[in-house]
Amino acid sequence: MTPIRYGMIGGGQGAFIGGVHRTAAAIAGQWQLVAGAFSSTPEKSRASGAEIGVPADRTYGSWAEMLEREKALPADQRIEVVAIVTPNHMHAPPAIAALEAGFDVIIDKPLADTLANAQSIADAAARSGRKIAVTHTYTGYPLVKQARAMIASGELGAVRRVMVKYTQDWLSRADDIAGNKQAEWRVDPARSGEAGAFGDIGTHAANLVEFITGERIAAICAELNMLPGRRIDDDGAALFRLSGGGKGTLTASQVCVGDANDLAISVYCADASLHWRQEEPNTLTVGRRDRPTELWNAGANRAYLPADLLAIQRTPGGHPEGYLEAFANIYAAFGRAIRGIASDSGEPGFATMDDAIAGMKFIRASLESSRQGAVWVDLSTIS
Amino acid sequence: MTPIRYGMIGGGQGAFIGGVHRTAAAIAGQWQLVAGAFSSTPEKSRASGAEIGVPADRTYGSWAEMLEREKALPADQRIEVVAIVTPNHMHAPPAIAALEAGFDVIIDKPLADTLANAQSIADAAARSGRKIAVTHTYTGYPLVKQARAMIASGELGAVRRVMVKYTQDWLSRADDIAGNKQAEWRVDPARSGEAGAFGDIGTHAANLVEFITGERIAAICAELNMLPGRRIDDDGAALFRLSGGGKGTLTASQVCVGDANDLAISVYCADASLHWRQEEPNTLTVGRRDRPTELWNAGANRAYLPADLLAIQRTPGGHPEGYLEAFANIYAAFGRAIRGIASDSGEPGFATMDDAIAGMKFIRASLESSRQGAVWVDLSTIS
Amino acid sequence: MTPIRYGMIGGGQGAFIGGVHRTAAAIAGQWQLVAGAFSSTPEKSRASGAEIGVPADRTYGSWAEMLEREKALPADQRIEVVAIVTPNHMHAPPAIAALEAGFDVIIDKPLADTLANAQSIADAAARSGRKIAVTHTYTGYPLVKQARAMIASGELGAVRRVMVKYTQDWLSRADDIAGNKQAEWRVDPARSGEAGAFGDIGTHAANLVEFITGERIAAICAELNMLPGRRIDDDGAALFRLSGGGKGTLTASQVCVGDANDLAISVYCADASLHWRQEEPNTLTVGRRDRPTELWNAGANRAYLPADLLAIQRTPGGHPEGYLEAFANIYAAFGRAIRGIASDSGEPGFATMDDAIAGMKFIRASLESSRQGAVWVDLSTIS
Amino acid sequence: MTPIRYGMIGGGQGAFIGGVHRTAAAIAGQWQLVAGAFSSTPEKSRASGAEIGVPADRTYGSWAEMLEREKALPADQRIEVVAIVTPNHMHAPPAIAALEAGFDVIIDKPLADTLANAQSIADAAARSGRKIAVTHTYTGYPLVKQARAMIASGELGAVRRVMVKYTQDWLSRADDIAGNKQAEWRVDPARSGEAGAFGDIGTHAANLVEFITGERIAAICAELNMLPGRRIDDDGAALFRLSGGGKGTLTASQVCVGDANDLAISVYCADASLHWRQEEPNTLTVGRRDRPTELWNAGANRAYLPADLLAIQRTPGGHPEGYLEAFANIYAAFGRAIRGIASDSGEPGFATMDDAIAGMKFIRASLESSRQGAVWVDLSTIS
Repeated sequence: MTPIRYGMIGGGQGAFIGGVHRTAAAIAGQWQLVAGAFSSTPEKSRASGAEIGVPADRTYGSWAEMLEREKALPADQRIEVVAIVTPNHMHAPPAIAALEAGFDVIIDKPLADTLANAQSIADAAARSGRKIAVTHTYTGYPLVKQARAMIASGELGAVRRVMVKYTQDWLSRADDIAGNKQAEWRVDPARSGEAGAFGDIGTHAANLVEFITGERIAAICAELNMLPGRRIDDDGAALFRLSGGGKGTLTASQVCVGDANDLAISVYCADASLHWRQEEPNTLTVGRRDRPTELWNAGANRAYLPADLLAIQRTPGGHPEGYLEAFANIYAAFGRAIRGIASDSGEPGFATMDDAIAGMKFIRASLESSRQGAVWVDLSTIS
Repeated sequence: MTPIRYGMIGGGQGAFIGGVHRTAAAIAGQWQLVAGAFSSTPEKSRASGAEIGVPADRTYGSWAEMLEREKALPADQRIEVVAIVTPNHMHAPPAIAALEAGFDVIIDKPLADTLANAQSIADAAARSGRKIAVTHTYTGYPLVKQARAMIASGELGAVRRVMVKYTQDWLSRADDIAGNKQAEWRVDPARSGEAGAFGDIGTHAANLVEFITGERIAAICAELNMLPGRRIDDDGAALFRLSGGGKGTLTASQVCVGDANDLAISVYCADASLHWRQEEPNTLTVGRRDRPTELWNAGANRAYLPADLLAIQRTPGGHPEGYLEAFANIYAAFGRAIRGIASDSGEPGFATMDDAIAGMKFIRASLESSRQGAVWVDLSTIS
Repeated sequence: MTPIRYGMIGGGQGAFIGGVHRTAAAIAGQWQLVAGAFSSTPEKSRASGAEIGVPADRTYGSWAEMLEREKALPADQRIEVVAIVTPNHMHAPPAIAALEAGFDVIIDKPLADTLANAQSIADAAARSGRKIAVTHTYTGYPLVKQARAMIASGELGAVRRVMVKYTQDWLSRADDIAGNKQAEWRVDPARSGEAGAFGDIGTHAANLVEFITGERIAAICAELNMLPGRRIDDDGAALFRLSGGGKGTLTASQVCVGDANDLAISVYCADASLHWRQEEPNTLTVGRRDRPTELWNAGANRAYLPADLLAIQRTPGGHPEGYLEAFANIYAAFGRAIRGIASDSGEPGFATMDDAIAGMKFIRASLESSRQGAVWVDLSTIS
Repeated sequence: MTPIRYGMIGGGQGAFIGGVHRTAAAIAGQWQLVAGAFSSTPEKSRASGAEIGVPADRTYGSWAEMLEREKALPADQRIEVVAIVTPNHMHAPPAIAALEAGFDVIIDKPLADTLANAQSIADAAARSGRKIAVTHTYTGYPLVKQARAMIASGELGAVRRVMVKYTQDWLSRADDIAGNKQAEWRVDPARSGEAGAFGDIGTHAANLVEFITGERIAAICAELNMLPGRRIDDDGAALFRLSGGGKGTLTASQVCVGDANDLAISVYCADASLHWRQEEPNTLTVGRRDRPTELWNAGANRAYLPADLLAIQRTPGGHPEGYLEAFANIYAAFGRAIRGIASDSGEPGFATMDDAIAGMKFIRASLESSRQGAVWVDLSTIS
């Protein structure tokens, strides 16, 4: 099999998520990084490219240059996919340009800084006919997919109640921002978009709810907060109603001391409950009434998991896969989609434009709700 | 030391919480059950008394009879305290009568079926000068007291965010009520009071929040639900605001399949977080930034706990105490109060009228919020 | 039901296990402490009795006096059972005397300081026809009984491998002994018997293995150690062979820093494994091949547990019972045996003379093995 | 930086560990697989090479051919390192030949099928002056390195007691071998070497003990077992003595139902204890006396970890790294060694010949001990 050639926009020195994308692609296999515009300044881009091992002649000074020059290369040499790992406000321009230039696109979440920009990307994708994937990392975990499959099968009954939280502590101190490259753009509305924690991690939590339940968040009542001196939410919580009638609570915060990356979800259905926590991702707890609680475990040889989940895992039970392998599963799934290989489960393996637009509406609705004093906002009214 | 003589109202055959009170008093030591009106029918009361081992001549056919006849006994024989463990609608009449008859009272939560009745009890207590304790079980756990003490000391900084849940599954099926004595009165508004799950267990969750943070819930936005065919909430969730400015989420449900008695709380302060779960009550997890997470453990010999907490425990670390010992701590503390022994920590060791009235207002506000579509209700407006 | 009247030998001020016995009996219900010889000096005995609430005229200056004077009381007033909670070297004389005086006996473990003395107690019990129970606390836990029942049923297949550990840290420092009443007698061979940690807690571990597997330890290869300056083992480990052919490892230590009372066991059978840990006693983990791991939970309403286990629990699932309730289960079972009520499961609910003698042989064999350089010793050669 | 070019021997279709090596090298970065002799038959080797993406002209029919032809290539094209992932009996011939041909070697554990062959490899490495690394995976985990560093610093005091277990269940049924490529060679003494479970996973456990404590296993008393019909041990346990005077127990079994890859270790030192479990590798539990237990967590931003451990991690706290990343750390460390970059901690980051020979002596001593009825064997007598 020939690897898929891709170029990266963003992800230069000092960035975090770009390196994650590159390692994920390496783990996925059959992906080859051959070009990049790694920074907003040409010098930094070249220094980054050299460090990463991308040839100098394909390390570009800007994303526009990369798209133009790659397009001009022979078909068997030029990149096929563009990976976009820039701050949120720099998602839409290169994504739309890449799609229009005929490249497939894989892009970090949230899809864009504003709903309007997100919609423009989705429109460009539809217009161009190119494939696009959004990397909602946590749906790449095998046991998250298993949770979704169990609910989709109907065997657990209707979803009644959801509790989801995503808490971190890296912004818990007033002075956490100065000098922290990851923090600076995230707390700047001009670069991050209008939401802070709710955009950065709240969307992950919302996406996880929608992925596992197979429903959408239909209405939300959210209260967002920020430490003194901040310009954007760093904390918040919400009540929500699912499209299928279930109810839930969601907390997203970057000021919760002691928590590193604590995304955890419980979904209570009529006949069983599911519990999963990202920091120990290889266990899915299944609660049942009048029966012992079950611990389902990940692993490429776990006979009780469906074949499509066994196929995406690399190691047998007890050899833990983690965050990078979950991310790799998204690259692998997008690779299969590009090659035209259908998903057995019908679940594409990456977030689609529909999913991503739903995430943008979640952000918008949360902000509106909070601004009005935490009142209910119906997501169907968001546009 | 002479034991405190007490009589019980309620708690006959088929009841649950009466037996818990009796065992708790036995573990506490220095309490002696000498009289009882265990049921609403004299025959059942006598049969229960015989089984429990209360002398026939002090097993009464009604609580009114008990109060009248005990009062007539010599001071060194008659009961000193009345324990009330009847369904909620039967709290106020015997409590008020007992207080007026000069007895101290220990009473199960919630204080009454309605806020008005609760207030009447509180008024009677104030008028009579008698002592009264409400048994909010979970504040009897040593590590819950430790959590309160740590926050009260100021060393953890201001409370920012609280997550509390109390979930059970014993009402998760539509047919769970018929024939279940515990369920029948709890889901009947005439006996339980206007709230179901929010009254039965939501109050425990709210009380735990207030006990640990040392603050009150100032405003709430709650949505309560019930399975088809029910007359009273069996599930719900809320956003709340604390009097000190912190924010929180609260879930209380009796339809969460797979959960037995899952009361769990996380309190995030500016400098540390505390996590406690009732089903494994002997560990208090303390999260800190840039330092390892700490597991504080219960035990009568844990040198890192304060002396007043060491004093109330019966076994050294690693010999788990549980629910009954937590309950016993409430009896022990009330016994000390009756004997005029001051609490070292200033915390009485049992819920006071103020605490219980706050709990009733929490119920009232939650119901009003939900009825209006889950809008914010300020608890100071509840009366 | 009339309570069983008992008298206690030992358990005065400063003792630990005596208080545990009294609280356990109170929780069990139907037991009444009416007499005691609480200390080796009459003054201390009386002071202790006053504190505990035993009438002065039945608080005796010595156990011999107690036995003589109680025997002289009318049958409906005198004690029926003697509880012996003295240091090990003071087990045999009062136990034998009590049995010969016609009292039933409940006695702390290990049965005696030496195998010969233990055998004398067993002989006296057989001769007298009186009932005798040894309080191996940990077999009182409901889920330990469930583990035994599951293996006894044959559904898990033959026992292959056992890992058991019992570790504490209260003797981990060289200076832990001076001034600690609990420590002083335990590390003095004249009072404790020839073994230290292996006698004090190793016997619990061995008893737990034998109780759960339904087999005996047939041979052992043990290496015992002690800190410099000690006269008796405070640490050790062993390989062992079970009577049914399975193999195991056992560690018992009182110098393992960070462990409080960490008794934990894993039993691997041909078709499933069982895992239980005393510090979180309300979960029994069942490992199966090619199926999710199961968490069995304690509780008086857990429909998947057998009726006899539901009957001995006091609280529904999620309301944790602990060490004192496990101990109470032993008193309750011995109470039933005294009243002639048969055990449904055939398991008496307390350790018998056979169990206790097996425990003494385990101690003896471990010591002999260790003295010879950790060679194999067949327990059938011990006498 | 130019990647290190390597060729692989073994690891063709149906193999497990070869794929792990390749993914680990990809995650490590700066490694490039450019050649291979993937199977013992040329056809299979080529089919495997095509699937993996190695050019056909560098996919060889035998390892001898690979070594000869690669050696003949220009220095800037030929492989620099040979990765050997064949069954144990096929380690020594290619390893010695590769070293003698001037290549560095990275080789799976155990080093060889017999101690003599292992010694021959070590001799060849010494003679040739080439670098060689053995992939004892589990020492690649950051928190295992942290455990080692904490003990090495002396802050925890002397090692007193170790408990280590490594249990799996994939051979728990008599019929587990037929048709399972992984099982067939492992249970065949001609290919696996004389030991089964003790060679396959017991060595990992022993290596982990020696790595963390910084000591060697000086003497061992082991009893090895096998299911009926097997030719090689599939289960066993041992007592051992460390060179520094501490004592331990070790269990290694592939017939422990319900366990996947359950490598777990506890090390008790004079002043603290350390606990680590491979299936949840991102937590190191530190037990202390009279202080709360600490949970140390992995992560590239955990300020309380030393700089060299932060440097080898790819993701911040709460984004779990797993087995493949631990393995990648070994490739990364060997890459640094090849490039002449010194290790900050002095710990090379991979198992050396000394470590591997110690592992072979552990196997030999365990077998001898068991054959003689589980007697003590001094490892210094093994040669």
